[in-house]
Amino acid sequence: MAPHSTLESPGSQDKGSLGKSTLDKGTLETGRDLLADVSLPAAVIHEQPLAHNLAWMQNFAEQHGAQLAPHGKTTMTPELFRRQLDAGSWGITLATLPQCRAAFAEGATRLLVANQLVGHANMAIAVDLIRAGCELYVTVDSAENVADLGEYFAKAGVTLRVLIEVGIDGGRCGCREDEAITELARQIRHLPGLMLAGLEGYEGVVHGDDPIAGIRAYAERLVTSVKRLAQEGLMDVESPIVTASGSAWYDLIAEAFRDGGLEGHFTPVLRPGCYVVHDHGVYREAQKGVLSRRPDLHEGLRPALEVYAQIQSLPEPGLAIVAMGKRDIGIDLLPEALVRYREGSNTDSPLSVDGWKVVKLMDQHTFIELPQHAEGVQVGDIIAFGTSHPCMTFDKWRQLHLVDENLQVLDTWKTCF
Amino acid sequence: MAPHSTLESPGSQDKGSLGKSTLDKGTLETGRDLLADVSLPAAVIHEQPLAHNLAWMQNFAEQHGAQLAPHGKTTMTPELFRRQLDAGSWGITLATLPQCRAAFAEGATRLLVANQLVGHANMAIAVDLIRAGCELYVTVDSAENVADLGEYFAKAGVTLRVLIEVGIDGGRCGCREDEAITELARQIRHLPGLMLAGLEGYEGVVHGDDPIAGIRAYAERLVTSVKRLAQEGLMDVESPIVTASGSAWYDLIAEAFRDGGLEGHFTPVLRPGCYVVHDHGVYREAQKGVLSRRPDLHEGLRPALEVYAQIQSLPEPGLAIVAMGKRDIGIDLLPEALVRYREGSNTDSPLSVDGWKVVKLMDQHTFIELPQHAEGVQVGDIIAFGTSHPCMTFDKWRQLHLVDENLQVLDTWKTCF
Repeated sequence: MAPHSTLESPGSQDKGSLGKSTLDKGTLETGRDLLADVSLPAAVIHEQPLAHNLAWMQNFAEQHGAQLAPHGKTTMTPELFRRQLDAGSWGITLATLPQCRAAFAEGATRLLVANQLVGHANMAIAVDLIRAGCELYVTVDSAENVADLGEYFAKAGVTLRVLIEVGIDGGRCGCREDEAITELARQIRHLPGLMLAGLEGYEGVVHGDDPIAGIRAYAERLVTSVKRLAQEGLMDVESPIVTASGSAWYDLIAEAFRDGGLEGHFTPVLRPGCYVVHDHGVYREAQKGVLSRRPDLHEGLRPALEVYAQIQSLPEPGLAIVAMGKRDIGIDLLPEALVRYREGSNTDSPLSVDGWKVVKLMDQHTFIELPQHAEGVQVGDIIAFGTSHPCMTFDKWRQLHLVDENLQVLDTWKTCF
Repeated sequence: MAPHSTLESPGSQDKGSLGKSTLDKGTLETGRDLLADVSLPAAVIHEQPLAHNLAWMQNFAEQHGAQLAPHGKTTMTPELFRRQLDAGSWGITLATLPQCRAAFAEGATRLLVANQLVGHANMAIAVDLIRAGCELYVTVDSAENVADLGEYFAKAGVTLRVLIEVGIDGGRCGCREDEAITELARQIRHLPGLMLAGLEGYEGVVHGDDPIAGIRAYAERLVTSVKRLAQEGLMDVESPIVTASGSAWYDLIAEAFRDGGLEGHFTPVLRPGCYVVHDHGVYREAQKGVLSRRPDLHEGLRPALEVYAQIQSLPEPGLAIVAMGKRDIGIDLLPEALVRYREGSNTDSPLSVDGWKVVKLMDQHTFIELPQHAEGVQVGDIIAFGTSHPCMTFDKWRQLHLVDENLQVLDTWKTCF
């Protein structure tokens, strides 16, 4: 995937010189050993679980007859987009037009925006992308927005692919009623700037007493609706898209798509994002649900993202202060200390964090309650932290280190938030 | 302030081309009107309150005989560092060595790290900075760390200025006992790689039934301790530093420093960070406390940082979904809708957000409950949001727009997190 010269940016030009940056967090270019040579705190991706997750989810999608368009907003890491596309992904999902521009500049050419496109400044970016050859999809859910888009794109002389978003009462965006979906499809049909390419939904906002039944019903509604619109001749593409799925309930969506009689006539697309590095919290819990419903999936995904940081102070008995804070790691849950190393040691000599408990984070500090039996703890000791959810860790970093099982740095990847 | 060639970086080289970036969030180069030409969501700093805050806090410090070293980790925005230094700041405070490297590359030459320096990779950055002419201070609070630093810097042949951190029981870092402070000072005296330059503290971790009394006592302890160490001949500089203060209790610290008999012999330094843009939450509340204690300070600081975003969906009565989320704005408190504009209008036509209530944020979406009387609300309407606290908004952005009172973009500033 070569960068597109029409959308070159300082970011993409920097790529070659990433290793020489003195500005970015976490870089030190005298060595490649995470436990000796890298400025900490640093965000780290482990190659082995990453490779496992990439292959695992691609295989999962294929086994269910679905395409994969991983949500790129999770990582905004072009090297991960490349790995996902190389593994067989159909496209990349994103949340905003600036995100699309960044991904396209890095060579991702089929982009699905799982959001309404509002604002003429954002529409201008979309026009630039389409003109440059991007296959761009956005969602719509209102007559007002559709009229605005129709006028803007007709005037620009390009056609925008749209997916009607299907919502639920009390949910987020999306048409609540089937009638509204049909009306919107009819409106789009009359607008030369727009092309109806399918339906989009997000099951993560389905709640209630029985979320599993609710999500199944929602997925079936997506399938029924896309078939109905196609039957009524309202689709402008040969193989209309039907898409949903985050990283928590992907099995339910994939099953409904597999069993919906879509084969050969529709393009089912799954859009999990967090799967690529999984996590040590929310998604680890969600995976227990997936595996209890689907024991055939075996072990599932593996956590691949950690933040490494050092104890900076042991100011009183039972308390360690780590040089890492809310500016460095996601805190949907309090981070978990996974393993400890002495600085300059190797992975053969892990030290215990048994009973260590993160109790508080400030912007640049983490407070750990040490158990009574903690002995030989030193200022400078390096701790690997797992956390949840990954989106909120990625966006703290301009670069992440890819490491092997011996914590040797294989590569340093920039993010393009 | 010219960039230092020895520490040039892609970041500083990009500076001139910032306006041409297509990768960064929020840029569109066809115009400069925030309500018409800029891709939203976008982070915005208002020039008038910013200029007020810069002058106000500088004046406050001077009136109390103190120097100002604003905490730069809040903004990590070189243009703000420049404005702070131009306004008279003595230096810039930072939290990590990579932050120091970024600030120094942008021309800030006196840097105070309000944290322990751990990790040889971070020490290597410190050595590079000192060799390049940086006047660098770090804090210490343990014999272990002091020994490690002493050895490292002696071997490197440079001298590191250290401040002993004074802590409190149940607090964060810092020596708990006066004896420990003295012992550490004596240890430093014997290490040629280190120079004792003063004492450091942070009053934000003082709690208890009467925090005001607690903070006053803590500030007095800092003053007494620095005088005692100087008297004992343990200070290696002519005018030892005594420093504390965040953006919530700066009046108490400044008063203790003013009344401590430090003049002419010591360098009292205040380190507030958030003051520069203030906020609509935690610090607005804290300011009520400051102004009730000190009515002579008049109105105090003004909020200067907002995030502008657009309604992307009105999916059911009473609900607006805004294209802005946790990836765009700090959520220590839920953001507050301040004012609304129609896209393409001007500031003469503000629309009501009376009774609008932000009830939830997801990664890329904000949920607003609309009151029954809300009429004429449209998809695409632009809302200005205030929030708390500013650190957690700044770090979501690679650039921010500086605007005048008519929301015309005066400049676009990059961040260097």
